[in-house]
Parts: sequence; C-alpha cells; structure tokens
Amino acid sequence: VTRPKSAAPAGYDTNRRRILRISADLFARNGYHGTGVSDLGKAAGLGKGALYHYIGSKESVLYEISMGQVSQMNAYAAEQHDQLADPIELLHALARGLMRNIADHRAEWTVFFREYHALTGDWRDRVVAAREQYEGYWRAAIDKGVRSGALQTQPSLVVKGLLGMFNYSYLWLDPVGGLPPEDVADLFMDAMLHGLVPRPGDPQ
Amino acid sequence: VTRPKSAAPAGYDTNRRRILRISADLFARNGYHGTGVSDLGKAAGLGKGALYHYIGSKESVLYEISMGQVSQMNAYAAEQHDQLADPIELLHALARGLMRNIADHRAEWTVFFREYHALTGDWRDRVVAAREQYEGYWRAAIDKGVRSGALQTQPSLVVKGLLGMFNYSYLWLDPVGGLPPEDVADLFMDAMLHGLVPRPGDPQ
Repeated sequence: VTRPKSAAPAGYDTNRRRILRISADLFARNGYHGTGVSDLGKAAGLGKGALYHYIGSKESVLYEISMGQVSQMNAYAAEQHDQLADPIELLHALARGLMRNIADHRAEWTVFFREYHALTGDWRDRVVAAREQYEGYWRAAIDKGVRSGALQTQPSLVVKGLLGMFNYSYLWLDPVGGLPPEDVADLFMDAMLHGLVPRPGDPQ
Repeated sequence: VTRPKSAAPAGYDTNRRRILRISADLFARNGYHGTGVSDLGKAAGLGKGALYHYIGSKESVLYEISMGQVSQMNAYAAEQHDQLADPIELLHALARGLMRNIADHRAEWTVFFREYHALTGDWRDRVVAAREQYEGYWRAAIDKGVRSGALQTQPSLVVKGLLGMFNYSYLWLDPVGGLPPEDVADLFMDAMLHGLVPRPGDPQ
C-alpha cells in the first residue's frame, strides 16, 4: 500500500494526503458503500489511472483514514506517558489530545466510527489492535493514578465509559462556535475525576 | 408509513416487527447503502409486492428502526421522571434503562448510530428532535439534582459526556459474557457521581 519513501517523487505524499482528506469528506457525507472509486477520482480531479498511482483500492483508503488517526493518537499517548509523571496531568493530556484531534479531523473520525467495520481480514484486525493499544494507554494512566493513590481503585470497565465520553464527541463537537476542544476535554475530565456529587468544601 | 390499526389484519404488526428486526440485522452487518430492498425481501422470505405491503421504502425502514428505539427510551424516561422523586435514583434508572435497551437491541442501535445521517428531510428532523428530547430528560434529571443539592452545579455540556459514556457501549457491550447491562450502568453512574479521585473515607 505505501511506497518506499526513497522511490517517491516530490509531491507524491502531498497528493496522497490530499486524496485521503477528500475521500474522508466523501465517505463521511455519503457513506463508504455509497462512494465509488470514480467519485473519489472525480473529487480529486484525477483519472482512474492517476488515482491508482496514489491509492491501492477503496478499502485501502478506508484503512488509511482509520489507521491514520488511531496511529497519531497512539504516538501522542506514548509521548505523554514518557513526559508526564503525574497521572492526573497525564489523563488531562490524553483527553485534550483526543478532543483536539477529533475537532481537527471530524470527517476522518466520523468515517472511522461509522465505517471501520467494513474493513476485512488483516486490515480490520490491525485497526482493532491499534484501538486496543490506545485503550491500553488510558488504562495504564488510570493504573498509575491508582498506584500513586491519586485515584481510587477502579473496575476495569471504567476506561470504556471514559473513552465513550470523549469519542462520542465526533457527533456533536463544534470546533467553530463552541468551547475550544481542550476546554471541553478538561471539563469532562474534571467531572469524571471529582464526580457530580458535591465534596466537602465544594462551592454550590 | 403506518396503517391505521383498525385496518390491519391479524399478524400484520407481527410481520412488520419481524421485517424491521431482520432489516436492522442486515443494515448493521452490511450497511444501509450496502443493503438493497431485494436483500430485505430475500431475508424475510417475501417477494417485492408482499414486502411493500409491510414497508413504505428502504428509508422508511431506517426511520422506523432509528425512531423505534429513541421513542421507547423517551417513553421510559418520561415514566421514570414521573415515578422517581430522588434525582440520584432517577439518574441510575435512566442509565439502567438505556444500557438494557442497547444490550437487547444491539443491531438497532448500531444502525441508528452509524446510519441515521442517511435519513433525509422530515424523517431526519424528527429523529434529531426525538434525540434532543431524550437528552432533555437527562438534563432535567441533573437539574433536579442540582436544585435539591444532591449534585453540584454542572456545565451544561456534561450531559453530552454522560450520554457518551452510555451510548458508546453499542460498540463493546457484551450482554452474554459480560456483566448484566444494569450493573454496567450502575458502575458508570457511580463513577460519574462520585468521581475517580478518592473522597475522605473511601476505601483504597
């Protein structure tokens, strides 16, 4: 699917990224099954031959859109784990990074959540594995918090609820008119960390 | 779309429900755009004419699948608001009802979350309005809690995070091998109400 970098002519990667972006918009608007390769070519202004120079197949485009965002989030999460020793800061950083990425790549996340199940075989397995890896970074952050005493011991399912709070935002997040995504992330994380029930000393 | 009850022969409603259930399974597996009316007929064992006796169009099937679950949840939420004066009990009841419904109607919720955007015009508007009504029941439950002093004043976005925790479960909830959906709901609601950070007196 990906060509070795050394063999890529100048502009090859730029064109691929442009095609993936256009494809994400089309898949998000008309569905994966509702979009043909000829639609992708038309939107990108490329004939079939030129298009296949950049992409392997429609399914490979879906794979790269889905995997692209998850890989970015995994790289970001690994980096935050390396840099932040405080588990509460780490959880806030993971939340902010995810909300910012969803806000900046709404079409890609929409395609991921709605369509990744259309991937087959190895491609699907790889995306599922990458998602589990990502969940693992959140789980590890909570575990760090429990070990340090900053968090109470948690049932392991809690991480699914926590991720749901953030992931579900692809449906409603408004990066233009609403709060900055980082503020939404902090608001959700604070609600989850401190709870909705007042604590002694909370302002009412 | 719906025929007046008085005109419906015996078995008409049963057949419609069966067709909607089969359609939900097919849409969940192959996508709305990837499923044709002829696929629905084949799976239901009905010719085109017989099928159209029960459904108006493929889009009307998508509408009824989506609206069916949301309407059930609205009716349930209205009932809980009437019956439960305690806002914490009310929130737990809303959460349990939603998780139970998602567990029992996995295919329908999958279709709803992945495909409702394929609805057009009035149909789409009605589903969106029903969803907003449902969110309103959760918002009202939180407001009751804030007024009674059981909950801290909350930014209004918190309800989106709370719903996300539960809604996202259509992707992972395991009604067979996992915890009963009501227990998952209680676990999430307790985490959200009390927070992950220990309170004075919490066991470690």
